[in-house]
Amino acid sequence: MSEITLYSYELDENSYRARLLLSMLGLQWKTVAVDMFPGREETLPPMLALNPRGTLPVLADGDLVLAGTEAILSYLAKGYDPAGKWLPEDAAAFGKVAMWLHFSATALAPAFAARLKALFNTGGHETHLRAGARKALRIMDDHMTLRHFGGAEWFVGDGPTLADLTLFPSFALSRDYGIDHDEFPALRRWIRRFRALDGFRTMPGIPDYH
Amino acid sequence: MSEITLYSYELDENSYRARLLLSMLGLQWKTVAVDMFPGREETLPPMLALNPRGTLPVLADGDLVLAGTEAILSYLAKGYDPAGKWLPEDAAAFGKVAMWLHFSATALAPAFAARLKALFNTGGHETHLRAGARKALRIMDDHMTLRHFGGAEWFVGDGPTLADLTLFPSFALSRDYGIDHDEFPALRRWIRRFRALDGFRTMPGIPDYH
Repeated sequence: MSEITLYSYELDENSYRARLLLSMLGLQWKTVAVDMFPGREETLPPMLALNPRGTLPVLADGDLVLAGTEAILSYLAKGYDPAGKWLPEDAAAFGKVAMWLHFSATALAPAFAARLKALFNTGGHETHLRAGARKALRIMDDHMTLRHFGGAEWFVGDGPTLADLTLFPSFALSRDYGIDHDEFPALRRWIRRFRALDGFRTMPGIPDYH
Repeated sequence: MSEITLYSYELDENSYRARLLLSMLGLQWKTVAVDMFPGREETLPPMLALNPRGTLPVLADGDLVLAGTEAILSYLAKGYDPAGKWLPEDAAAFGKVAMWLHFSATALAPAFAARLKALFNTGGHETHLRAGARKALRIMDDHMTLRHFGGAEWFVGDGPTLADLTLFPSFALSRDYGIDHDEFPALRRWIRRFRALDGFRTMPGIPDYH
């Protein structure tokens, strides 16, 4: 196995997504701490040489360098989970997981921005961002309510996948940006199950009890 | 093969991405035209029942319903390209393709918004959107310049993949939002190659000659 390096910031929820999967896959990795706030080191030349977009996290695995959270998660699952538990091989299940990864990168962008604004006073209109976040969380809660009627406990299929993993942080951290968990009962049940999985690790801002 | 239905709007570049891949895979599909402008039919109850996010395109394949452009492209490649040409099975190549799919959904969002603003007077600040679009296209052009030095003609690997397919429309349509192709010589060479592929189809706004 080649050496895996994660360029990461402790309070960045996307860096946390990568740490979470690395941990749940039981992998060893080296962390390079990048000072996102206040230093914005990810936008300076040394990090731009790795990722010209200037975003975190960045993953290096031997010669391969990847940026973009959903790409990093997809790569790690493809390369290090031969059973295909996190990223199913079946085309329909694969498509559904890909849909939630895409949802995480797009529909949850307001939740991501709302949290950064609350913690670090970055850009955007707080009310609009929170409304966008609530809309996305409502879609997730409705989905899990319907899944529960059908006896299912995870976003796709019978076990946890990258869909659950990528959606978990935005909801688990929602109190950081002023949205309470009580509004979303199906998601509350779901994150309790997710927290009990092998290899789970937390991050600052995720409450211990629900 | 089950029947594939694409809910699509002719002038929507994301709907075009799905049409392009369906065509290049040699698939048969049925189109349901959704009036995105001025009707915003994708945000009304009949379409929300299929996709609660209210976005286009939506793909139905038998019982499976998918939204999110990158998810639709990934699913079609996984399900209907057994050779893995469009979405490689090798983990590193797969990761690189996933990175460009993610780039398309996030870094190119300003290009997407700039085009909608120019065509349909939707929201956003034109100068900011165009600057964001130009930054993303610059990253793509730099990448293809380096690839060309190495003798490579496509974004990932030795042949066209979903990376090329998902990036193609934003550049090909850039004149719609006021960015000329002459600024990006490596991308100009690349789209000429892409247009020559089997199954290629165009859309309104893509110039015929470069």
